[in-house]
Amino acid sequence: MKIRRIERYDKMRIIVDAMGGDNAPHEIVKGCVDAAAAFDVELVLVGRQAELEKELNACGKGDVRITIHNADEVISGEDDPISAIRSKKNSSMRIGLSLTAEGKGDAFVSAGNTGALISGATLVVKRIPGIRRAALAPVMPSAKGNFLMIDAGANAECTPAFLKQFAIMGSVYMQRFMDMDSPRVGLINIGTEEDKGTELIRETHAQLKELPINYTGYIEAREVPLGGADVVVCDGFTGNVMLKFMEGMAGAFSSMLKGVFYKNTLTKLSALMVKGGLADMKKSMDYKEHGGAPVLGVKAPVIKAHGSSDAKAFFNAVRQAKRLVECRLIENITDGIAQYGCDEKKNV
Amino acid sequence: MKIRRIERYDKMRIIVDAMGGDNAPHEIVKGCVDAAAAFDVELVLVGRQAELEKELNACGKGDVRITIHNADEVISGEDDPISAIRSKKNSSMRIGLSLTAEGKGDAFVSAGNTGALISGATLVVKRIPGIRRAALAPVMPSAKGNFLMIDAGANAECTPAFLKQFAIMGSVYMQRFMDMDSPRVGLINIGTEEDKGTELIRETHAQLKELPINYTGYIEAREVPLGGADVVVCDGFTGNVMLKFMEGMAGAFSSMLKGVFYKNTLTKLSALMVKGGLADMKKSMDYKEHGGAPVLGVKAPVIKAHGSSDAKAFFNAVRQAKRLVECRLIENITDGIAQYGCDEKKNV
Repeated sequence: MKIRRIERYDKMRIIVDAMGGDNAPHEIVKGCVDAAAAFDVELVLVGRQAELEKELNACGKGDVRITIHNADEVISGEDDPISAIRSKKNSSMRIGLSLTAEGKGDAFVSAGNTGALISGATLVVKRIPGIRRAALAPVMPSAKGNFLMIDAGANAECTPAFLKQFAIMGSVYMQRFMDMDSPRVGLINIGTEEDKGTELIRETHAQLKELPINYTGYIEAREVPLGGADVVVCDGFTGNVMLKFMEGMAGAFSSMLKGVFYKNTLTKLSALMVKGGLADMKKSMDYKEHGGAPVLGVKAPVIKAHGSSDAKAFFNAVRQAKRLVECRLIENITDGIAQYGCDEKKNV
Repeated sequence: MKIRRIERYDKMRIIVDAMGGDNAPHEIVKGCVDAAAAFDVELVLVGRQAELEKELNACGKGDVRITIHNADEVISGEDDPISAIRSKKNSSMRIGLSLTAEGKGDAFVSAGNTGALISGATLVVKRIPGIRRAALAPVMPSAKGNFLMIDAGANAECTPAFLKQFAIMGSVYMQRFMDMDSPRVGLINIGTEEDKGTELIRETHAQLKELPINYTGYIEAREVPLGGADVVVCDGFTGNVMLKFMEGMAGAFSSMLKGVFYKNTLTKLSALMVKGGLADMKKSMDYKEHGGAPVLGVKAPVIKAHGSSDAKAFFNAVRQAKRLVECRLIENITDGIAQYGCDEKKNV
């Protein structure tokens, strides 16, 4: 791997995949310039040097603390995640993960290929001791605020041991990052009676009851958008289905609402009167507005910014990464897993 | 079992569980009186004779073709489904299913305990030859119209053979009941690439490709509310999660909209202007408005009307049952399964 030496640093340093996502590198660089100006952090943009220098100059970089780390290759959204992260060793994502793993940065943010990022985080940054699987854990909007869903798609098939660790990590995340005292952790099931669901669910349920977290039991999917839990635990297949279903429903609502408002002159007038409120509502329903999705279970904060991130969304993802470092998320997850989440203490 | 003889009949006869659901028997009887007046069918109300006679008299029954078949017991929503259907042999649901199984009616409609109805349909009406599992298959709203989801919760754990039969049954349903020439059948997955998902999904995918149905491949949950398939095939866990998530999202959306419109005088005025449109939209999003959910895979049409059915919803469920008899759904499913859905012909 061609990794250049970076000097010791005093400030928090966030590594950025400057080539990932639909709007890279332009919007990524723009978001980073804003973030470096707003926060007391250093940013390392990983990607094609010449391109990034051009973008930085166009932004009028000034004296903000941004350095460029060259990476010639790019992993695209169409690349096969696992083979891309293995073979494209000079890609911005792979090099960024390596820099993070080597302690040359405190956190990593990428808007690139989700599957490659999850595989790469596990392969390069590596899992926290005892962790069985890394999970994707987006914070999503509900009628009452936000909830964390874990896993949203990293692991299509899970065991009770995986789900138990997801519950611990999710609970720690909401405690540390969202300052919740005692986040309510629910396990997705198709009913609330004890004997409902699959064997996976029932066995996980038994194990979660024994944990020193605020496990509130089974939660039906109906309650999720209504704010029925702060941490929603599920396998990655179910989580991904819910995540995407939410996206689709929001799209369907939106197009139906348009139909209602564009009917005639009177309804169009009505639309003008509630325009601001509707825009706010649309925004609050859009999970992309709620920051990036952390990849939990690896040894450094790794944030998956949405693929369609613009400068503002990326700025928010950098802020999120900064906050995860400050709130000592990784240390707290490491402790929680060591105490309650390892297989040896399966029934603790 | 205390089952009374009913004479031979010439008209179509629909058996009704008059005691099932939140609004039984009043709304059920009312819906049936309207249905008997509107359609050329006979209805058999199964339930407590005295209560039902009182309700019928209150409706001013007139000369409509409704008979009462006494059943002393009732299965409630709180009863454990399997033990209730086994032990309460004199319940309206169990007796209604038996009458249907014995050919004393052409179809059965109940707004009662969903789990008991699915178990009872399998136990009493029995499966169509070759069918591995009965499935719950509600017709649900999308931005473009309707789609059938199969399975919505009858089978939390499935095999490729189950899902293959669900695809056949769903396709036949949409062809016959909705008059679609070639319903698009999609298999829920967390991506559209061939290697995505679980082993169950990949194996099912391979089998569905071989069927003479319009199988369009994997469908992501995002596309479901946008109308991406006419038949959405999934295991009962995933289906139940989507069904309930849709309910929750609709609720969350509705409460957020209220917030937008109740903000101030101007927005309240705006609400008046689009009141009708919003009511229509709410209605079209409410899957309860889209009739009952058939239990597919058994030897007679069995319809699960929504537990909160009022007279109008129940009237619609009776109409749906009538239409299922007329369109020869069972005969067509039986043929389809015999030709393409049996294990012996796994790869046909």
